[in-house]
Amino acid sequence: MDLTGNLLIGNSAVPGSGGEIFGIDAATGAALPGRFAGATKADVDRAAALAWAAFPAYRETALEARAAFLEAIAENILAIGDSLIERAMAETGLPRGRLEGERMRTVNQLRLFAKEVREGRFQELRFDAGDPERKPVPKPDLKLRNLALGPVAVFGASNFPLAFSVAGGDTASALAAGCPVVVKAHSAHPGTSELVGIAVQKAVMSSGLPEGTFSLLFDAGYEIGQALVADARIRAVGFTGSRRGGLALMDIAAKRKQPIPVYAEMSAINPVILFPGALAKRGADIGRAFAGSLTLGAGQFCTNPGLILAIAGEGLEAFKQAAAEALKAVPAQTMLTPGICKAYREGVAKLMGHDTVKQIAAGQEGTDHQGSAALFEVKAADFIAHHELQEEVFGASGLIVACQDLAELHKVIGALEGQLTVALHIDADDHAEAAKLLPELELLAGRLLVNGFGTGVEVSPAMVHGGPYPATSDGRSTSVGTLAIERFLRPVCYQDFPDALLPQPLRKG
Amino acid sequence: MDLTGNLLIGNSAVPGSGGEIFGIDAATGAALPGRFAGATKADVDRAAALAWAAFPAYRETALEARAAFLEAIAENILAIGDSLIERAMAETGLPRGRLEGERMRTVNQLRLFAKEVREGRFQELRFDAGDPERKPVPKPDLKLRNLALGPVAVFGASNFPLAFSVAGGDTASALAAGCPVVVKAHSAHPGTSELVGIAVQKAVMSSGLPEGTFSLLFDAGYEIGQALVADARIRAVGFTGSRRGGLALMDIAAKRKQPIPVYAEMSAINPVILFPGALAKRGADIGRAFAGSLTLGAGQFCTNPGLILAIAGEGLEAFKQAAAEALKAVPAQTMLTPGICKAYREGVAKLMGHDTVKQIAAGQEGTDHQGSAALFEVKAADFIAHHELQEEVFGASGLIVACQDLAELHKVIGALEGQLTVALHIDADDHAEAAKLLPELELLAGRLLVNGFGTGVEVSPAMVHGGPYPATSDGRSTSVGTLAIERFLRPVCYQDFPDALLPQPLRKG
Repeated sequence: MDLTGNLLIGNSAVPGSGGEIFGIDAATGAALPGRFAGATKADVDRAAALAWAAFPAYRETALEARAAFLEAIAENILAIGDSLIERAMAETGLPRGRLEGERMRTVNQLRLFAKEVREGRFQELRFDAGDPERKPVPKPDLKLRNLALGPVAVFGASNFPLAFSVAGGDTASALAAGCPVVVKAHSAHPGTSELVGIAVQKAVMSSGLPEGTFSLLFDAGYEIGQALVADARIRAVGFTGSRRGGLALMDIAAKRKQPIPVYAEMSAINPVILFPGALAKRGADIGRAFAGSLTLGAGQFCTNPGLILAIAGEGLEAFKQAAAEALKAVPAQTMLTPGICKAYREGVAKLMGHDTVKQIAAGQEGTDHQGSAALFEVKAADFIAHHELQEEVFGASGLIVACQDLAELHKVIGALEGQLTVALHIDADDHAEAAKLLPELELLAGRLLVNGFGTGVEVSPAMVHGGPYPATSDGRSTSVGTLAIERFLRPVCYQDFPDALLPQPLRKG
Repeated sequence: MDLTGNLLIGNSAVPGSGGEIFGIDAATGAALPGRFAGATKADVDRAAALAWAAFPAYRETALEARAAFLEAIAENILAIGDSLIERAMAETGLPRGRLEGERMRTVNQLRLFAKEVREGRFQELRFDAGDPERKPVPKPDLKLRNLALGPVAVFGASNFPLAFSVAGGDTASALAAGCPVVVKAHSAHPGTSELVGIAVQKAVMSSGLPEGTFSLLFDAGYEIGQALVADARIRAVGFTGSRRGGLALMDIAAKRKQPIPVYAEMSAINPVILFPGALAKRGADIGRAFAGSLTLGAGQFCTNPGLILAIAGEGLEAFKQAAAEALKAVPAQTMLTPGICKAYREGVAKLMGHDTVKQIAAGQEGTDHQGSAALFEVKAADFIAHHELQEEVFGASGLIVACQDLAELHKVIGALEGQLTVALHIDADDHAEAAKLLPELELLAGRLLVNGFGTGVEVSPAMVHGGPYPATSDGRSTSVGTLAIERFLRPVCYQDFPDALLPQPLRKG
């Protein structure tokens, strides 16, 4: 399929006139076919105006029609066929199997939200019957429903070119809630973005939905995304990316005449706590499993297990030895972009050069575009004293914090920032100690897991992919799973309304 | 009952050592019995430390125990007897009937949240069964529950000394959610606050709940409230008051190392839209009803109907004439505090002196501590051109915006800021025009009502007392009704947990 490099503004495909963007072959750094041109502020204005115009009709679409629209997007993505996978492979360096899996995840995510829309629970319909005879004052008739917030700006992530990008979780949940979406494509995979964007645009048109329900903008820099968040017609933001990027958007959103919510999933090092009983029994097994999780997808997951907390001793030695051996055999892997690769190498170099940090293992060397796994160790007291050791190194780098005892382990946990996940490796005889920690861990992360690693994020009703600041901008929400729809809704109450003036879902019958 | 003037910190009553506060007789400006002394930063630290220490146990109280605690608070408030009403009457100038009604509302609100806690729906329990056989990867077992955010700082409002104060809606919903509460009492009713604070403190002790579940602090200025919001152990804020106060707290909360949500209900002028059909048929009736709503409680309601939008003509003239006649007969009413009375007079004087504004009616004159009703009129174009005419004048002052036609009415609505309520007065033949406006009105306010005024705020499941910024800091929430509990919760997911380590509500059986 030929790429046009056009912006998708409402139902049109429009050549951009901003800065040029090229897809980059992640494995070689060479430019890929297709020339994308960035949007201008006039394009932002046009996309926002169309989204605003589409909003009243789109938010009142019948549930069945909205669900069918989400399913049509899923069908259209599948219909692109292998050219989508091939383009995504080239742009991201991710292997075929991973991207085929991610496509299925993206499609199933859209279908799950279609199901959620059909069930209609998100509307939170409430009915308080009135009572004109009540004393001392009559009781009014009250009806409540959740209403879509308004057009949502979605920022695609580099590390999930399908599942957290143009038609990923933020887009799916915002569309499900009844919000038009304007996507600022991630410039690391413009071709993948265009292909998926066309799939969404086609679904808008074939479903007879108002023009402006969806638009897709490219930008070589930050200006267009910032203009989008500042636009008065945009009413919420979904973002997955760096902490710096997320904080910048939060700042813009807070300074607007009407501030808007920003749901930014920013950074985490996802502590893994190894308890003494589990370490004693199967330290080496856990070490091998950890090495696998750390290096999955070149470690480029928000939920990558970057921090290991354990009490020093034989069990931890067995863990380290097994992890180190496994890591040594792991080939270097192509990273998503030259910039990410460079940042990873700098992060690893910083740890190597840190006075208090000791390197335990290194994966195999690769090309200039590849990252090698790395494992480090630091003493608990040094970790606590050096806050910079909590900075995420995006990629397959892990840091073991060796504690003298459980009391010191508690101290380390007390020093941690908000996280997406915390994993506990425990045996039956660790339960009592684990139970003591849980009240603190519940406040530290959105998801706690036992005897596993957080790298798999199931898309389902009970998932929470979120967590206290600074893991996300808003720890009251999740960006994965059906609960994500609630980010884009607000309650409205209708008092003493005649049936004919009520919104459809609140009418009789 | 003698007032001690003490701070209530955990289970203790402690003399404050900050600035002095006296209850002021609203009708005379004279100091009432009882000398209250403000908290120091050390008191804030102690209250926050106790709240933080209480949090793990309090948030895991069994639903029945938590519900019984809320009911015990209600009983203890009733048990204070008439001395509570008398003190509140003196401190606020509000009449007996109103305060007895407000006490019942406060008590019923606590009981309603007790019911909500018993039903347990707010926990949002979700269960996704795992499937170890699933290909290509096993499906994890996921369980979700809502968890309390942490200790909440509550700022009492001056205009509802019971229902939006020490044991008012914010406190009731935060305690229901499982959050300890530290109240910063409003200095306009310190005696009322102490009496209710002791009622809550007693309920904490008799219910065997951890010390620190509740504390009450006084302060003559702003410093203590600000220190409270800045304290790392406070995790959310409930506030009802001025826009300036709300914005100051939002700013402090956003600048913390870990930002926290602020639920501030700040200001509104609550537009009332009179449609041509309704005006033609019953303009005078609506005018009389409006005068009653405008002057209820000296107009000191967040939902006071401060703005009337209508198309100029005979119907509007009938409305104006009836409203003016009714208002002329309304006696001046004692206002809550000398400061509020002064601000009201200044607001009215500003309208009187405004070039584009014409006074239509004035209520009867009263004492220095009383406010007289006032009604003004302005042309739509002038209203749009003068943004300052949207500023709330807290008290019984209303402004009629006369439009030439429906198109101009639309323009006025487009120029309005976020509101708590919008009221529509319509007849059957106005339905078509009203329907055209509704999509815009839904975005303007949290509650829309037909053929009534917003001054009564029912405490029930379908109520929304909230609305887009700047009516509140967060239009996704309500501060009245059972939905208010959701402000103080966040979802947490437990993956592959052994039953014994799960929190109680997620365990088997």
